[in-house]
Amino acid sequence: MKKQERIVLLGAGNVAWHLARALHLLNVGETEYIVTDIYSPSGVTACDLASTLGEGVHSTNDLSSLPQDADWYVFAVRDDALPELWTQLAHHTSGTWLHTSGSTDLCSMTKYHSSTGVLYPLQTFSKGKVLDFSSIPLYIEANNESTQARIETLAHSLSNEVHHASSEARMALHVAAVLSCNFSNYLITLAEELLSAHQLPSKALLPLLDEMIEKLHHLPAQEAQTGPARRRDQMVIERHLKLLHNTPELEQLYRLLSEGIRKRFDLG
Amino acid sequence: MKKQERIVLLGAGNVAWHLARALHLLNVGETEYIVTDIYSPSGVTACDLASTLGEGVHSTNDLSSLPQDADWYVFAVRDDALPELWTQLAHHTSGTWLHTSGSTDLCSMTKYHSSTGVLYPLQTFSKGKVLDFSSIPLYIEANNESTQARIETLAHSLSNEVHHASSEARMALHVAAVLSCNFSNYLITLAEELLSAHQLPSKALLPLLDEMIEKLHHLPAQEAQTGPARRRDQMVIERHLKLLHNTPELEQLYRLLSEGIRKRFDLG
Repeated sequence: MKKQERIVLLGAGNVAWHLARALHLLNVGETEYIVTDIYSPSGVTACDLASTLGEGVHSTNDLSSLPQDADWYVFAVRDDALPELWTQLAHHTSGTWLHTSGSTDLCSMTKYHSSTGVLYPLQTFSKGKVLDFSSIPLYIEANNESTQARIETLAHSLSNEVHHASSEARMALHVAAVLSCNFSNYLITLAEELLSAHQLPSKALLPLLDEMIEKLHHLPAQEAQTGPARRRDQMVIERHLKLLHNTPELEQLYRLLSEGIRKRFDLG
Repeated sequence: MKKQERIVLLGAGNVAWHLARALHLLNVGETEYIVTDIYSPSGVTACDLASTLGEGVHSTNDLSSLPQDADWYVFAVRDDALPELWTQLAHHTSGTWLHTSGSTDLCSMTKYHSSTGVLYPLQTFSKGKVLDFSSIPLYIEANNESTQARIETLAHSLSNEVHHASSEARMALHVAAVLSCNFSNYLITLAEELLSAHQLPSKALLPLLDEMIEKLHHLPAQEAQTGPARRRDQMVIERHLKLLHNTPELEQLYRLLSEGIRKRFDLG
């Protein structure tokens, strides 16, 4: 019979959702990982997530109902919800504690538990969009060697791309991810809305966006830069600012980002 | 023998470079398009581009040396260089004038010539990166029906995706392209530099960026939004701002964009 490693998952948001599906019933040699319990503050999203994993996964909004002898406690919640959870669970669970946060130091968790680590997936997760977890870069860290070995086994079973990163490196990765991904997605949201406001299809930009990213597989982003600010084409910039005049926040963003690009290429 | 349509290309930047390669020796039924002349202000980039097209393409920095009886005059230069070129060539060329600008009204060209139109490729072009022109969306406009028919033939020969767009719609497309593509590329540049500054590989974000765009094929950008500002995770935002404290411009951008995202989801 297979050995089972039981996982308690705290959180039921985007990361928890994808991680639960990747972890549950994962087989590694003689070991099978199973998610036994999912916690969320209201219990509702935990229940939704548990139901997608099939029978026998327990969901709750009550921390005291969680097993205290699981092999893993995986914390996949907003960073600002972590300290409260850790305080409540401190000194009465076994196993390894793992958080998935890009911007939380490992040592901030280690004071609550003796075997702690980080498994940070550098990816953007939305519940409705299925992902191939094996290609997601995982950045791991642990507070001692035996925990590290445990996390390495788990990480390599989940993904083909596992890296070690200190808390400091992980923070830089997370900031870079927010700048490049979350903020780009926001700018694309604004662009889609502008198109809709002009009765144009909001997805008209897809071929452009596909190529923008495709180029980055071959060129540093700085070399791939195009557009009026790069060309110092002030006439176009003025026309665009005029179009955005009725949306002052958009106008301010346009001005600031164009200025940043122009300064960068003025030097060169 | 094939009928030839002779093209004079004004400009030798990124758009001109890709357009020249797509147009030169293009066969459409009994017609062959050939680029006969390329102009650039210094003549140097025109010479470089001409040499990539093979023998017999003339390059110059002298407008008066251009043929006056070509079939097409294609203006692919910075918008603020257009009026001067048009003034100099007005009333002594035949054929159809075409500009490729997203943000220049057709009527601003029509006062210089009787057959005018626009062929705006909605794509980001870098000289070193080869592209499949047939999948680039082309937005066209013309000042009369016969010119429109000529441009339609040309555009459908270049691309499988040809749309009509008024000058106003084209301007909105261009602003949306700058917001979504040029500005995202700039943010990715900043992210790549941040990673390098922390001794991390600058291309570590590629799987994330690939997925960010992949998601947009399935979801509106607003629904695809993730990150600390979306989750209103103020603790993470503060930590990131602290990391960016020594780069005030980056800090300001982070603050402004996070604020924009947060406001948007505060309403929902």
